[in-house]
Parts: sequence; C-alpha cells; structure tokens
Amino acid sequence: MNKLISLRDYKSAQQRRNFLEKQLNINLDNIGKFSFTEDQVSGRNIENLIGATQIPIGIAGPLTLYPKPYTLNPIYIPLATTEGALVASVSRGCSAITQSGGAHVEVENVGITRGPVFKTRGINHGFEIKKWIEKHFNLIAQTAQKTSSHLKLLKIDPAIVGRNIFLRFSFDTTDAMGMNMATIATQEIAKLIEQKTKAQCISLAGNFDIDKKPAWLNFISGRGKKVWAEVVLPEKIVRETLRTTPEKITELVKTKNYLGSILAGSMGFNAHFANIIAAIFIATGQDPAHVVEGSLGVTTAEVVEKGDLYFSIYLPSLIVGTVGGGTHLPTQQEALKIMCVRNVLEYATISAAAVLAGELSLLASLAEGTLARAHQKLGRKK
Amino acid sequence: MNKLISLRDYKSAQQRRNFLEKQLNINLDNIGKFSFTEDQVSGRNIENLIGATQIPIGIAGPLTLYPKPYTLNPIYIPLATTEGALVASVSRGCSAITQSGGAHVEVENVGITRGPVFKTRGINHGFEIKKWIEKHFNLIAQTAQKTSSHLKLLKIDPAIVGRNIFLRFSFDTTDAMGMNMATIATQEIAKLIEQKTKAQCISLAGNFDIDKKPAWLNFISGRGKKVWAEVVLPEKIVRETLRTTPEKITELVKTKNYLGSILAGSMGFNAHFANIIAAIFIATGQDPAHVVEGSLGVTTAEVVEKGDLYFSIYLPSLIVGTVGGGTHLPTQQEALKIMCVRNVLEYATISAAAVLAGELSLLASLAEGTLARAHQKLGRKK
Amino acid sequence: MNKLISLRDYKSAQQRRNFLEKQLNINLDNIGKFSFTEDQVSGRNIENLIGATQIPIGIAGPLTLYPKPYTLNPIYIPLATTEGALVASVSRGCSAITQSGGAHVEVENVGITRGPVFKTRGINHGFEIKKWIEKHFNLIAQTAQKTSSHLKLLKIDPAIVGRNIFLRFSFDTTDAMGMNMATIATQEIAKLIEQKTKAQCISLAGNFDIDKKPAWLNFISGRGKKVWAEVVLPEKIVRETLRTTPEKITELVKTKNYLGSILAGSMGFNAHFANIIAAIFIATGQDPAHVVEGSLGVTTAEVVEKGDLYFSIYLPSLIVGTVGGGTHLPTQQEALKIMCVRNVLEYATISAAAVLAGELSLLASLAEGTLARAHQKLGRKK
Amino acid sequence: MNKLISLRDYKSAQQRRNFLEKQLNINLDNIGKFSFTEDQVSGRNIENLIGATQIPIGIAGPLTLYPKPYTLNPIYIPLATTEGALVASVSRGCSAITQSGGAHVEVENVGITRGPVFKTRGINHGFEIKKWIEKHFNLIAQTAQKTSSHLKLLKIDPAIVGRNIFLRFSFDTTDAMGMNMATIATQEIAKLIEQKTKAQCISLAGNFDIDKKPAWLNFISGRGKKVWAEVVLPEKIVRETLRTTPEKITELVKTKNYLGSILAGSMGFNAHFANIIAAIFIATGQDPAHVVEGSLGVTTAEVVEKGDLYFSIYLPSLIVGTVGGGTHLPTQQEALKIMCVRNVLEYATISAAAVLAGELSLLASLAEGTLARAHQKLGRKK
Repeated sequence: MNKLISLRDYKSAQQRRNFLEKQLNINLDNIGKFSFTEDQVSGRNIENLIGATQIPIGIAGPLTLYPKPYTLNPIYIPLATTEGALVASVSRGCSAITQSGGAHVEVENVGITRGPVFKTRGINHGFEIKKWIEKHFNLIAQTAQKTSSHLKLLKIDPAIVGRNIFLRFSFDTTDAMGMNMATIATQEIAKLIEQKTKAQCISLAGNFDIDKKPAWLNFISGRGKKVWAEVVLPEKIVRETLRTTPEKITELVKTKNYLGSILAGSMGFNAHFANIIAAIFIATGQDPAHVVEGSLGVTTAEVVEKGDLYFSIYLPSLIVGTVGGGTHLPTQQEALKIMCVRNVLEYATISAAAVLAGELSLLASLAEGTLARAHQKLGRKK
Repeated sequence: MNKLISLRDYKSAQQRRNFLEKQLNINLDNIGKFSFTEDQVSGRNIENLIGATQIPIGIAGPLTLYPKPYTLNPIYIPLATTEGALVASVSRGCSAITQSGGAHVEVENVGITRGPVFKTRGINHGFEIKKWIEKHFNLIAQTAQKTSSHLKLLKIDPAIVGRNIFLRFSFDTTDAMGMNMATIATQEIAKLIEQKTKAQCISLAGNFDIDKKPAWLNFISGRGKKVWAEVVLPEKIVRETLRTTPEKITELVKTKNYLGSILAGSMGFNAHFANIIAAIFIATGQDPAHVVEGSLGVTTAEVVEKGDLYFSIYLPSLIVGTVGGGTHLPTQQEALKIMCVRNVLEYATISAAAVLAGELSLLASLAEGTLARAHQKLGRKK
Repeated sequence: MNKLISLRDYKSAQQRRNFLEKQLNINLDNIGKFSFTEDQVSGRNIENLIGATQIPIGIAGPLTLYPKPYTLNPIYIPLATTEGALVASVSRGCSAITQSGGAHVEVENVGITRGPVFKTRGINHGFEIKKWIEKHFNLIAQTAQKTSSHLKLLKIDPAIVGRNIFLRFSFDTTDAMGMNMATIATQEIAKLIEQKTKAQCISLAGNFDIDKKPAWLNFISGRGKKVWAEVVLPEKIVRETLRTTPEKITELVKTKNYLGSILAGSMGFNAHFANIIAAIFIATGQDPAHVVEGSLGVTTAEVVEKGDLYFSIYLPSLIVGTVGGGTHLPTQQEALKIMCVRNVLEYATISAAAVLAGELSLLASLAEGTLARAHQKLGRKK
Repeated sequence: MNKLISLRDYKSAQQRRNFLEKQLNINLDNIGKFSFTEDQVSGRNIENLIGATQIPIGIAGPLTLYPKPYTLNPIYIPLATTEGALVASVSRGCSAITQSGGAHVEVENVGITRGPVFKTRGINHGFEIKKWIEKHFNLIAQTAQKTSSHLKLLKIDPAIVGRNIFLRFSFDTTDAMGMNMATIATQEIAKLIEQKTKAQCISLAGNFDIDKKPAWLNFISGRGKKVWAEVVLPEKIVRETLRTTPEKITELVKTKNYLGSILAGSMGFNAHFANIIAAIFIATGQDPAHVVEGSLGVTTAEVVEKGDLYFSIYLPSLIVGTVGGGTHLPTQQEALKIMCVRNVLEYATISAAAVLAGELSLLASLAEGTLARAHQKLGRKK
C-alpha cells in the first residue's frame, strides 16, 4: 500500500491537483478551471479544494405567473442537468401553462427545523421539560434570537418516548435556507434547557428535525416552505400543445401517481418532482441533499368545466434560500439573476411553477407514449 | 408583459446568453466559461444550453478497503459540495477507518427497474397476464435484450389491483446506470405484452418502478445496487481520532438514527447518507435526483469485544453508473479517474465506503457536541 | 341458486336462527344463548341479530400502579382471547412489575378526530376557507357543541391539495370513545362551512381523520389518548421472575422492535401491543377495529443505574371509552367493573399498564428462547 | 394496598369469579354463562379463565359469488359487532352486488410467515449464511416439515444489516392460520442454522415476519392470503339500491381513499376494511389482533362501459384459518357453519366478498351524505 498522504498537507487547489495527478498518473486540467477564488470557498463551502465540477445549464421558459403583478414576467428557469430532454420537457410545460394564462402559486413559510434530543430521568421528567418549554417559549425565543438577527423561533414540537424527549424547533431564517443558523441557535437553546431542566442533550440533531431523510413528519407538518402551484388548461391547449387529453392526464395521475406509488409504499405521489428540483437547486447553489425533501408531494388532475384540465402540484417541504450556502458563488449568482428573484419567497414561487411545468409535461409524454421515443432519440445520439 | 421569446430560437449558448443578458440586463460571464463543447452535451444531456454551473470539489481521503487486494488503495474521494465541513468530516472518518485497518464493503447488483402499468378487463385478466408473463419470461427477456447488448432482464414483479396490472422489470445494465436503456427495452416488452394479452399499456412508467421518489419497495427489494460497508474501530482510535467513545456512538445511533427517525415516520435511519451521496454523485456525473434513493438505509453500531466499536451502513438502493448520463463530461471524467474505478461495482464500493466514513464522523461530532461549534466557526467566516 | 331471502324479513333472533338452521341444515343452539336482551342491542349495536359469540375471558394480574394513590390497587385485567399463553404471559409481566414497585403511566387526551373533505374552486379558495376557519373557531366550536353536551372541539388541522381541503377536527368526548358524537357534530360544522364558504362537502369522513387504518398522522399527532407506561426493574427481578437479563432485553428491543420493524417498513416498533389491546378491547366493549391504531407505537429499554432495566411503552393512538358502543352490554359491563375504572382516563391508564406487562413478558420469553416451547406445549394439547 | 392474590391459585372459573366478586364487591353472573367447557379452552386458548364475553352477531347477506359454481350460494355472513349500522350496511352492499350478478373473488395463498433474527460476526458472515440457506433449502424444508404434516415451507427471504441477518420463512399451513405451527417449525430451523453456520438466534420472531404490526413488507409481499374482489354494478343499481352514482363513488374513492390516506401517511387506502374484518374474525374465532393486517389494502372504482361502476377491493394480508385458534369453540363453529366453508380458501373468499360489500355500501353512504343521519338515528335511540 502506498503511503497515505492527506490532502490537508497542501496549501492550494493547484498543489492538491498536482499531487493527485502525479500520484494517480491522471490529468485534472478541466477540474482546474473555475471562476470563483479559493478564498471565496475554502473554509466556508469546502475543504481540500481541487477545483470545480461543471454541470451544463439549460434554460426553460418563458413561463408566466398570475394573478399577482409579477413584474418580472416572463420567467426563465435555469436548470443544471445532464438528463437529456428535461429542459425541453419543462419548456413545453411552460409553454402550455403560459398559453393557458399562467400558473398560480401559493407559498407558506413553515420554517426550517432543528431538533435536539435530551436524555431524561423518565416519562415524568419528560413532561416536566415539556411544560417548562411551553411556559418559557419567550425566553427560549430570545435565547435563539440573540444568535442572529435574521432568525426567529416560530414553534416547538415535543415528542416524549421512554427516557428521551425530542424537540423540533421551527425557525424563520429570512432569505437563508438557514440550517447553520438554526443549528447555532439550537445549541444555545439546548444549553438553556440543560441548565434549567437537568436533562442532558445527547445530540443537537436527533432526527426529529428531520433533515435530508424522507419522512412523514415533513410531509405532514411541512419543512422550509410549503408550495402549491396550479393551472387550468383549456382542452384545446392540452390537445395541441401537449398532444394528449385532459381525461388521459387525469386517469394517469390516478393510476401512476396514486395507485402506483401506493403499491410501492412511497411518499412521492408525483411523476418526477425530484428531477426539476435537483436541476434548479444545482443551478442556484441550494443544498442538493435537500432534493430528498423536494421529492415528497402530490400531483392532482381533474377534468373541470368545458372539459378543461385542472392540474396542480403540492410540495410540503421545499428547503431553499437566496443567501448563504452555495448561492454566493459566481455561476450560482448569475443563475439567481436569470430568475430575477429578490427574496426566498419569489424563489420558492418560481421553483413551484417550474415543478408544475415539468410534471405536466412528463405526464403528457407518458400519456401519449412518447417517453421512450424521446429517450431512444437521445440514445441513438450517444 | 414582454413578448415571450423561446430560447429555442437561438442556435448557440453564446446567443442564448446574449439574449438573456440583454433582456434581463444581467451578466452571465461565469456561466459562459466551460470545458465541454456544445456538441458534447446538446441534444444528449441538455437543451437550450447557456453554459455551466461550477460546484467546488474537495478531496476526502485517503481511505483504505480490505480484504480484497484493492490495487488502487489508498482511495481519494472527490466530493462536489458547498456545505462547509463536509469534506473535512468525511476525511476524518476515512482517517479513523484507515487507522482501524480499512472498510469492508459488499455490493449486490439487484438491477435498475422500469415498471409500466397496463389497463386490464378485471382481476381475472390481470391474473392471465401474470401467468402469461411467468410462462414467457425467456421471450420477454429476448425482446428486451434485442434493444441493447448491454442489458439483461433479471426478473419481473407484478402487482394486480382492480383493472390494473403493474409490472416491475429489473435489468442488469452493465456499467451504465441504465434508466434510458431500461425504458427503451420496456417499450418493446410493453408492445409484446399488449399484442399477446390485449392489455393496454397506459404508462411505460407506472411508479411501481419506482424512480426518484422515496419508497418502501426500493428499501425492501433494493434498486440499482444494494451496498453494505462496515468497520471495527479499536476503542483507542474512537477516543483519539473521533474524540468520543464506542458507547456514545452506539447510544446515539439508537436514539437518533432509530428512535428519532421512527418518531418522524422516516425511511432514513441514518444521520446524513444523502450528504455524501449528493457530493459524490455531482462530482462524478450521476443523476442527482437519485440522491432520493441514496437517502434510504440504516446505520448500525455495537460495542464488541474489547470495547471496540463495530460500525456499519446499509444502502438498499444506490443508483449509479460509470458510463452514460453525465459521466462523459470532462470534469466528471476526471473525478472518476481520481477514484480509479474501472467499473460500476468499484464505483459502488467506494461510494459505500465514503458513506461509512461520513456517517461515522458526523455521529462522532454529534456525540461530542462539536457540530454547532464547527458551524459557528464557518458562520463567523461568512 | 336458492331464492334469496333477506334476514330483515324476520322479527326476532329466534326466527332468524330458525330460518338459517332450516336453510343450511345446521344447529345454532350455542349462538342462541346470550345474556343481553334483543332490545338492548337491536337498532343500536346490531341489525339482523341472531345471538352472540362467546370469547373466553381470563384474568391477568394483580398489577400495581404508582405513584398516584390508585385506591383500587391491586388491579385485575380482563382479557378476552383465544390465544393460549397470552393471559399467563401478561400475568407474569404484572408480577415482575409489581415486584419492582409498580408501573407509572401518563395519559394525554388528544381527542377523537373526524375529518371531512371539501371540494374547492382551487388553491386560493382553499386558503380562504382555511382563514375563515381560523377566524371563526369559536363559532365552529359552538356549532359542534350544540349537538352534544358531552363534546368539546379541541382543534382543527387543515390540509390543502389541489381543489380539495381536508379538515381534521379533534374533539374531547368525555368518557365516550366518541366517533358517533364526532360524526354528528362534524355534520353540523360541514353545513356551516358549506354555507359560509361555498365549498362543497364531498365526504364527512375524508381519511384525514384517519379511522381504523394505520397512519403516520395518528402516530405523529396522536388520536384518542396518547399513553406512556414505564417501570424500572431491579436486575434481580429480571433474572428471577423473567429469567433473562436487562442486557438481553435491551439488545432485543433494539434488534427486533427497531431494526426488524425498520426492515419491514412498519409503524409498530413493538413486539405485540395489538395482542393485549385486542384482548382488553373485546372484554370491555371497545370497537375492535381500533386495534389497528392500538398496534402503533414504540417500546424502549435501557440498562440503567446498578444494572437495572428501564422499560417503557408508548402508544400514540389509543381509542377507548367507558360509555357508548359495546360498553353497556352485560358481560362487558362486568369486565369494566373488574377493572374498577370510574372514567376513560383510568381505563386508558390500566390498558397502558397491561400493554407494558404483556410487552415485557413476551420480550423476556423471546430473549430466553421459550416462546416456541410454550407454543409447543399448547400445540401438543390440541 | 391489599394483599396480592394471583388468580392462578384458584382451580376453576367459578372459584376465580367468586374471588373477584368478593374482593371487588361486584357481580359476574353474565360472564359466568358460557357454552364451552373449561376443559375445551384452559391451557389451550386461555389461562385464569373466569367465563366469556358475549358479542352480538348479526347476519349480512345473502350475497352471491360468480362465476365458479359456488354450490353454497347464497351466502350468509356472520358479523360479531357492537357498531350499529354495520350489519345493515354490509347487507345493503350484498344486495347491490347480488342484483348486479355477484362478486368475483381471487385468493392467492402466500403463506404465513415467521422470521427469526440471528447475530453474525459481520456482513461477510451474513452473506455466508444467506448462501448456505439458498443451497440447503430442501434440508431446511425437511427440518420444518418434520414438525407437522400440515406445514410446508414455501420460501425464505433474508435481510442483512450490520451484524444481523433477519430471515422470513413463508409456510403453507393448510387450513390453519398457522402461527403456532410456523413458530415450532422455525425453532427447529433456527437450531439447524445455529449449528451449521455458527450464527446465534437472538429471537425466533425478529419483526421481519412481521406479525400484528402494520408494515409495508406485508403490503408489498403479502402475508397469509392475498385477496381480490370485484363487481360491475349497472348504473341503475347504483342509483336505485345505493342511491348515488358511479361518478360520485369513483370521485370519492380518489379523494378519500387515495388523497385523504396519502395526506395522512396511511397504509390503508380504503374506507373501512377493518370494520368488516373485525366483525367476521370475532364471529368465527380468528385472532382479532390480525385485524391490523386486514386494515391494509386498496379500493378501486371506475366508470366503465355504459356508465356502469367497476368496483374492487384488494387485501394483501388476510390472516385466517378454519381450524385451530378459536375456531373450535361452540359459537365460533356455528358461525363457520353459517358460512358453509369447507376450507380456508373458501373462508378467505367469503371474507373478501364481505369486505367488498361493506366498502361499497359505506362509500355510497358517504357519497350521498347519509352517514351522519344513520348515526344520528342510532344516537337518538341510545
């Protein structure tokens, strides 16, 4: 075995690349090309930096929203992906939605969560802590809010089991996704609770948060932002732009998104929310592990008055920010500018509309049996 | 509202950037810098290309595997992330594992799945189709295998409900992740079944596959590769390198990964598989929406002989490939070369070992209460 | 085919039995023996009455509770079951608990739920309804409370998806299990909401209640009563009375109740809550379909100071009453009297303690490998 | 506190009742009336017998099945329940189904399961055991089958995680529900595996069985019998007998059984399977804790040709027997005779048809808004 050399011993990305190139007899020229400076990311976004991965970005849209005077209509959506046909498909959905008058979106900020777990002396002690917390919500909120002026404690959900009490704190973290802020605030709260209740914090994150794992708690209570998007598509547009019918889409949502997902024991009653979420997250510097939460949710379709198609999506747990994380990097900043969003609520709104477009378009392709043909065409090219 | 202009009307990334820059009064210089050629990706990985997102890559490791003569030991793991502390944390885990003699990994190839749904005349018809399929497995396999020499049909799982039969085809797709191949093969199978059984395929993908949605079916039956990794850490190494104790890690796995996830109704009984999976996937050109499947799984910890720590991870559904998708792009190719993997099984092996390292390290930080301090330090820098 | 004769045409249980006896050439003498009068049950508990099923009742106990001055200690638990060894096993658990100083129980009344679903014009309409409900909670509560003096509206949880709003009303229904009361109250609330919001109630029960189906919503939010029970067993008692060790019980809870249930995709992280719940429910006139909710929950075990065993159970959704349903029938009334319970909270308390005893005892048997031997002995007898 | 007296010290049900009557100053005359002999049940079905609970039985039906020449048509269904309106509702469903030509049922015997868990030395050891088992299936089957001539090993499903291997054995147990038989056979298998592989069985039942807890494994793989039932109802019969329309039923199944259950995180995509299962189980001596498994499953509804209603139910895990358990008791035997079933497959068939009838009828009531009115009428009577 070769001697183990830690990359930490090198001072720059260049030096680390040189080491790996020599050690492994490879060339890392492409990884070596990047626009950010080492200072921008080292010790903040990454350690042992060697360079950057490049993911192609395509633009879907234009898409329009209604009824609020979204001054930035029409909207263009940057999607970083290597899955052929995704951008084209979302674009087709945008086109059908825009022709139908636009998408309507609602966003509810339920807050990012952090959830420590404490060891207690037993159930009674658990209940004492619960009562102490209910009684001292303001003190806890102040303690949290001293750690950052951008953070506000929204609520606390407890769960007692055996000699454990799990707490789930929900925070409004302004335009940041907020996990770091929430963790720092939670540490202060945990100290306070330990001191006042004699419970012992055994982990700042006790999986009752619950972060980056699929979970019914996030589906049911929401985490980050809850988003809904809907559109009513005239039957003619479904036929001409999407080449299918409202009846077929409605039937497919029931059979695939509900029955199929039911038989698979799923938490995702949709066709492919995760595809659109992953592409928009990567383009704009979100945490891509939060694609897990973004895969949860439900699509609905109904044939309504005049044979039109009502179509909607609901994501209970969209975890996003427009500051912090990877959002400050040069290419990610440019992607955010393409979206013209001024805050996280606008970001969530556009994301939801993009999911609506992508979901609609894929279901239309499946209903018409064109999915494999699209992939076959791509396949031949490869 | 501005006139809606489709990006499709432009012929090059440059033209599209120019249009957006003018239209939105922004600058896309950084997105415009990329190493691949437009020909490499357009119509294959992306449409409406404007450029690329850059994600910082850091290197974790070195890490050793045992007992097979992994000639490429020591292993370096490329992680594309913007989450500060992740690379350092995985590296610390690698160090503890390597000091303990290395990680042992097992990989089982259960195959990628595609699952169409057919409309039947009723339950009897569903059973007739089921019997026809059981009887004609070879014919179905041949039909599938005509579409690609890289694909092999492994098994077929049916589910009948009302006037629907859902089929789940599992394919070995050699070194490719294989969803496209599987879709094309499934289309041919579906035609055959329609012709022979008079059932009507209403969707090539019926969510009994189930792709990019968290689901118990994938947890229980596996999808792609099932991977296990384990290590026995001497008590001294746990104390000195991880600064905690085997008892604390064991207790934390039970309290956080089991009880916390149970109370949250989760499918992820781990601390943060998704973080490591997302970072390695993005660095190496995997489909990042498959982070959803990669978040499923279980960590175990036990205090064993001499007070040592047995630690393991299990991921039932790791969806990966070393050809196809985004793996051919220049930076992604270089990242794969850093891993020195010659095929998908080696890729899965290293991924599993990386997850083991990252999971171990975070649990150690939580057990010792250093998580928030790490984030605080990062926070101050921002 | 014989002419179809409805049992409705007959006026008494005797006549119906006579008809069936003649028609099917069978004898129903035993079903014909029962203590209640036809008037007591017909049109209230049952239609087309022919008689009664007899289920054997055994008595487990005595069991003691602490620390409240439960004047009725020691407690005897009536269990109606045909599963050999169950009563003996619960009794053994009672004995070990009593020797250890008794079980401690906590009960939280979260209320029975009923959840209608309304069709809306779209997401905006859904939000309007949600706001109307939040603003008019008092009016809604008054409307509900006019239907019964025994009912109080506790809270309302909404869920909006597409053109639907699901509401979940939680009611305190005093000592009744309360589903009927809740349904009648919900009908009045639904009329009010229809009138005020122009939404259309499409079902009084929309499965967001959710009744008699296993569901994470009930696990997470609770339904009926949440109950916890715990005991600390000296190591000596575990060894002598339960013939195992605190370490083995603790290990088994982790391996079986957590890991095994995790791998099975379960909502029940226990050994057999449902057995004890079913037996006590049937003995005392509860609705046996609520055994479904009673199967949810978590067992915990820890080795604590001096090597003693801390053992606990948690059931998030125990649906019980001491009036209404089948509780007024003669044998069921007598069984309630054996328990000496004066209200539903005492009933829930004893049920939880019984589950604690039964769970502890079965886990001890499994840890020592005596389960099959017990069944074998029973088997030989058969 | 009174002196603790164990019921075990008394020799007869009479003596135990006398003790309780004196101790608690109560009267147990009704519990003291029962048709079985003490010998029939003591040490087999129950310990510490004091008497019996009586549950009213009503008869639903007649119901017809097609197309097999069910010589016993028409069918009468004994339901032991105290939930007013249930028997009447199932009867109404039977009537609508019979008028429509009868119910069609399919039963698949997937076998009862028992699942031990073994402690291994690590993942490799787990895989060795897995391979040993695959190679020695016949030896294992013979070992199991020596314990009973009524039992046959059908398959073995393994799950490896960390230092544990969970095995799930599926057995055909002829007409018995079979848990006891399966446990005894599993004990012998476990000894064999311990001896041959040096793994240590830490529990004969490792919750990978999984028994009496709701679980996706049972939903997906089935347990006991999988049953399907369906009927096509002419539009006229839906209107006249069920007083609703095929469209309303179809819409309600989608909104309540799918969307409502989805939002509640349920495993039961039905209205009330558990009600019918509980009532038929109690009447016929099944294990009522298996109502948990019987609550799983899916209802489907579609408007088909001529505007008729296709309606179906699917239960993946119906755990039933016609010998053993409580089936031999006098009243339970009589109830089985009312059903005229000669074996467990006929029993499963009629149970499925009964669930179909009950589900159809409740959904019709909900669609028409008559549920609360029915309960109100019952409420007034009380």
